[in-house]
Amino acid sequence: MSQKLTSRSEDYSKWYNELVNKADLAEHSDVRGCMIIKPYGYAIWEKMRDVLDVKFKETGHQNAYFPLFIPKSYLSKEASHVEGFAKECAVVTHYRLMNAPDGSGVVVDPSAKLEEELIIRPTSETIIWNSYKNWIQSYRDLPILINQWANVVRWEMRTRLFLRTTEFLWQEGHTAHATKQEAMDEADQMLHVYADFAENYMAMPVLLGRKTESERFAGAEDTLCIEALMQDGKALQAGTSHFLGQNFAKAFDVKFADKEGKLDHVWATSWGVSTRLMGALIMTHSDDEGLVLPPSLAPIQVVGIPIYRNDDELNAISDKFITLGKSLKSLGISFKFDNDDNRRQGWKFAEYESKGVPIRLAMGPRDLENGNVELARRDLKTKEIVAFDGIESMIQQVLAAIQQNLLQRSKDFRTNNTFIVDTYEEFKEKIDAGGFFMAHWDGTNETEEKIKNETQATIRCIPLDFVNEEGKCMVTGAPSKGRVVFAKAY
Amino acid sequence: MSQKLTSRSEDYSKWYNELVNKADLAEHSDVRGCMIIKPYGYAIWEKMRDVLDVKFKETGHQNAYFPLFIPKSYLSKEASHVEGFAKECAVVTHYRLMNAPDGSGVVVDPSAKLEEELIIRPTSETIIWNSYKNWIQSYRDLPILINQWANVVRWEMRTRLFLRTTEFLWQEGHTAHATKQEAMDEADQMLHVYADFAENYMAMPVLLGRKTESERFAGAEDTLCIEALMQDGKALQAGTSHFLGQNFAKAFDVKFADKEGKLDHVWATSWGVSTRLMGALIMTHSDDEGLVLPPSLAPIQVVGIPIYRNDDELNAISDKFITLGKSLKSLGISFKFDNDDNRRQGWKFAEYESKGVPIRLAMGPRDLENGNVELARRDLKTKEIVAFDGIESMIQQVLAAIQQNLLQRSKDFRTNNTFIVDTYEEFKEKIDAGGFFMAHWDGTNETEEKIKNETQATIRCIPLDFVNEEGKCMVTGAPSKGRVVFAKAY
Repeated sequence: MSQKLTSRSEDYSKWYNELVNKADLAEHSDVRGCMIIKPYGYAIWEKMRDVLDVKFKETGHQNAYFPLFIPKSYLSKEASHVEGFAKECAVVTHYRLMNAPDGSGVVVDPSAKLEEELIIRPTSETIIWNSYKNWIQSYRDLPILINQWANVVRWEMRTRLFLRTTEFLWQEGHTAHATKQEAMDEADQMLHVYADFAENYMAMPVLLGRKTESERFAGAEDTLCIEALMQDGKALQAGTSHFLGQNFAKAFDVKFADKEGKLDHVWATSWGVSTRLMGALIMTHSDDEGLVLPPSLAPIQVVGIPIYRNDDELNAISDKFITLGKSLKSLGISFKFDNDDNRRQGWKFAEYESKGVPIRLAMGPRDLENGNVELARRDLKTKEIVAFDGIESMIQQVLAAIQQNLLQRSKDFRTNNTFIVDTYEEFKEKIDAGGFFMAHWDGTNETEEKIKNETQATIRCIPLDFVNEEGKCMVTGAPSKGRVVFAKAY
Repeated sequence: MSQKLTSRSEDYSKWYNELVNKADLAEHSDVRGCMIIKPYGYAIWEKMRDVLDVKFKETGHQNAYFPLFIPKSYLSKEASHVEGFAKECAVVTHYRLMNAPDGSGVVVDPSAKLEEELIIRPTSETIIWNSYKNWIQSYRDLPILINQWANVVRWEMRTRLFLRTTEFLWQEGHTAHATKQEAMDEADQMLHVYADFAENYMAMPVLLGRKTESERFAGAEDTLCIEALMQDGKALQAGTSHFLGQNFAKAFDVKFADKEGKLDHVWATSWGVSTRLMGALIMTHSDDEGLVLPPSLAPIQVVGIPIYRNDDELNAISDKFITLGKSLKSLGISFKFDNDDNRRQGWKFAEYESKGVPIRLAMGPRDLENGNVELARRDLKTKEIVAFDGIESMIQQVLAAIQQNLLQRSKDFRTNNTFIVDTYEEFKEKIDAGGFFMAHWDGTNETEEKIKNETQATIRCIPLDFVNEEGKCMVTGAPSKGRVVFAKAY
């Protein structure tokens, strides 16, 4: 635990892996590409989930649960969808094991072969639209506004904890509407819910935009996204919201009768964020000492550590901290008093630093005598001696200040790493150092593909606040109506 | 929606299926044995989950998440465990689909065969203990108190919504301890957490007991359980808590060093409840009109229905109900005002009755004039005209009374359907009519098996409050130290 992390400047990727391990967030399982989310990591995910869940319900959505298994034939019903997902799925072919005839253990029972193979859901559009077909007859049944919290599986070849794993946890909203406009508004609304969550809880500024055709979700007519910039200058897609048009309604024959009795296919959206957000959170704020958490999502917001030489001192300090814990609890602030006698103070300081606890309080005999406590801020690594009495309101202020500072710091970082470039030469020269690059593009797949092949950079999005600006594509010189955002990405 | 349910007395099983459908709780999916939990059903499950989650955390547990997939070889490591679970599992053998050469759709890509097949978890002891191996070195690492909310799959041949489905949702606690006593205490503690939840939230009285050897969890040394009695006289196992001894620690070689440095295997428990509780909740309280919900778990506790002939009347009534909704919200009471103009009052009355909403308020022009409202209780099907002013405190009292009444009613039912029998003749005569039967048993597997074969009744549990009473086994006449509980069961 006392081992130092590799620094970000030395090896960002190594730093990330070590940090996830040191802060006890997650680990690889023996199952290829599947992670174990450890209690501390899961507690952060729970906080994210709870905040998002409230926002979904406030916008009229209800939770439900659909099967893990998708019949193979469902995937094929939407042509582009199967193209996008068939290549990376786990396939269930049998439903029983039996003792091996040679006594060597258990083997698949060949007689228990499924007539039709089942796919572990990589996303649930198909199984859900197959159900909606029975739920929707008339305009009175619309809209359907459903969300599901679930695990999904995509067979990834290269995996990284939280960022890309074979199994991951997510939520997926699936809505059905009577009109195109309403579905488009829903997709837009949910994108803004995500953006609000990213900024105001994760303290992570995001660009709002739409994907180019080649980067769209398989089966969508329009994919909206939020894009964040990590400290190494790489972009991370943090959430997507899809306008699906009538594609899935057509594939699953879902029609409704309008007020005049006229039949039409239903309009759809889907939208999701996943445990990938954990990776985004880690990489946005953390430093060479470990995790840095915004107070809004910290499972422990304040930790109290006693410094003592004997039981009398410990008891006196404990009294203070236990009383403080109660009053913080009544203010909705989570406090942990760590009086574990098996661990030394230095170990504890390092431990909570690496776990990103926003405020650390330490009290020794002299502090006790003087009515003081030491307050350390994780974000700035500052500490000061302050009066213990009335510290509750100071803690509230400091937590708010940390939340604010983290957001401002990441906004500043993004500002300092967003570049306007006009020539492909300049682009190629600068792209490796990272950042968002605002450049003119001729709007063709060919140019996008060429840039990707030559630089590994992709168009992250066409910004929602796209500014009309006459220009010339940096590659082909063809006319362009405005700049799009390029970056290398996770 | 207006169709009446089959009555319980006519066909209990049909009544159950129709009720689950009519109350919009769940439905079968096209995937064999897998259910879709619809928003209203899921909202009840969410409430259950949230209450239990708080109780788990209050008793020191943390949530985490382990992989969906279990390597086939893990299952074999604990001998009795594999016997219990290998026969009913979903097996993943491939990780990719490809376009069929004949263009007919997608088929399994034969080149993407897994070296070792993966099992969809039927329960997670093996994958979790394989991880604990790396987490535990010394007594300082103990206890580990972890819970997981997850989906699991058991390939059931006969399925019923909520009661027995191929995929279901559950929580599974997995704890590791330094001593046998501590693990046994943990198993006992969690059983009491379940019993408290069943009684005080589900309003469902339960017997606490232990399973006989033949009914134990595969891999457990002792299985504790809570058993409830449904209205048709059949028992339902509502939760189990297992003392696993050192079985899994030995299978996965998990040892710890005690304070003296001596190595020993770790002691374990696991415990779980599932969406099966939804079935128990439905069958404990509901009646021929539909679902009856205890207020503690009702997503909507109070519904307000306006009765009006024109917009002026609707507006005046709406004002009243909207104001009431706000004050109920501040009291933590969930209220729905149903002003849907597309539905008639009679339809609404039937709808909320079938959905088990505990209190229905209806207000018409005359009520408005007189300052009254009609209050109907779902449990007793009574209604009365009461003064609207100050109705909040009355609602609080009525909700508490409903909760209390439902518990008392199901306790009385159980009392009236618990029988002491001394002869196998009497047992066989009465068992088909249902109920708990307290009888002497000689303690052998053979006798238990004989009774099961001849009557389909099983020993539900040996009660924790087992009374020492000399007697003779009702079947063999061999001596017995006390009575155990028999019933036919779900």
